Amino acid sequence: MTSIEQLLNFSNPIFKSYVFWTGVLVIKTLGMSLLTASQRFKTKTFANPEDLMSPKLKVKFDDPNVERVRRAHRNDLENILPFFIIGLLYTLTNPSAFLAITLFRVVGIARIVHTLVYAVVVVPQPARALSWFAAYGATIYMAVQVVLTAAF
Amino acid sequence: MTSIEQLLNFSNPIFKSYVFWTGVLVIKTLGMSLLTASQRFKTKTFANPEDLMSPKLKVKFDDPNVERVRRAHRNDLENILPFFIIGLLYTLTNPSAFLAITLFRVVGIARIVHTLVYAVVVVPQPARALSWFAAYGATIYMAVQVVLTAAF
Amino acid sequence: MTSIEQLLNFSNPIFKSYVFWTGVLVIKTLGMSLLTASQRFKTKTFANPEDLMSPKLKVKFDDPNVERVRRAHRNDLENILPFFIIGLLYTLTNPSAFLAITLFRVVGIARIVHTLVYAVVVVPQPARALSWFAAYGATIYMAVQVVLTAAF
Repeated sequence: MTSIEQLLNFSNPIFKSYVFWTGVLVIKTLGMSLLTASQRFKTKTFANPEDLMSPKLKVKFDDPNVERVRRAHRNDLENILPFFIIGLLYTLTNPSAFLAITLFRVVGIARIVHTLVYAVVVVPQPARALSWFAAYGATIYMAVQVVLTAAF
Repeated sequence: MTSIEQLLNFSNPIFKSYVFWTGVLVIKTLGMSLLTASQRFKTKTFANPEDLMSPKLKVKFDDPNVERVRRAHRNDLENILPFFIIGLLYTLTNPSAFLAITLFRVVGIARIVHTLVYAVVVVPQPARALSWFAAYGATIYMAVQVVLTAAF
Repeated sequence: MTSIEQLLNFSNPIFKSYVFWTGVLVIKTLGMSLLTASQRFKTKTFANPEDLMSPKLKVKFDDPNVERVRRAHRNDLENILPFFIIGLLYTLTNPSAFLAITLFRVVGIARIVHTLVYAVVVVPQPARALSWFAAYGATIYMAVQVVLTAAF
């Protein structure tokens, strides 16, 4: 299990797990747009004049419910998007299957929990901090392994 | 047409189309920085004290023209960046060439239209909503196919 | 050196360089979260009610030190994330090793310098503008090469 033909292959359980969680997290991240839109319509908070559905409305940028979802969405961009590329490169370093699949699951589940406790039902800290850190730590670990593999 | 050697190959029209539209959308997304800069200089709106070119200027964060381009740029980050990875993984699922190339074209053209009607010439809704949704729907479809391929 | 087996291989110095700088830049970008957190605690600036550690604090969105780090972080998302995919696709176009490795180094070093002069020690312009442009120009060049390879 060392050639690219064997690594980037759906019969490789590491690659399969990477692809599964990447697909799930793409759907989850894209879902934030619907969550934002639903909050915008619920609170009638629109950022562009052409979006206003009534002449009585004005553009608004400070609704706390809209802004909360937008912060969660930005947090996804900051944390999930780097995982997409580093998870792929980590797969190419031919890691232990058990460790790699565990790391992908940690990132996938932790980021779903992060969204739930941040933007769906607000749960007191440290729920968000812990879920954020679980995915962050796993991603940093993979990135360090990737750098070490490429450096030596 | 199932080995990685055949899939990630410029003689594979699906891969060629994916690479073409990804390159185009990288250039388009990076172009938003120049559009932002041009609006910043035109309206003398700068976010950092060290950017002020005259002692009479102050930092400013609320120019509507600058903020509009920045919202369009952020929308690119939210929608185009996930496409980059999911389009690549979708290519690896060995999809129908006709469907895959159509989906890549939809994403590419819809996102260019989205920028034009959002940040270049403001066109009334539903122009922006429709162009946004076309790329969004195509990306979600690819992500679902990727998850299904990896799950079974 | 033209098959995917030879291109996506740690014995290919171009791929090795791409993977190294991508790993370094993932760590650098993720590091912005710690820099933001450190500024948040230092200035007691929190964006969510559940993050407030004392009943005397209120949510705050306009601390200049926090906002500066957040702007630098967003600039990373705008510029570094597109590099991750375009650097990989550029590697697949089988470029000159000297040119490719130079471009990856320019992007890697320029983006580290950009963070240092923007968010660590504020250096007068044009330090930030130049470091931003170096990485931007290199990424645009790679994207144009990728588009040309896929288009013909």
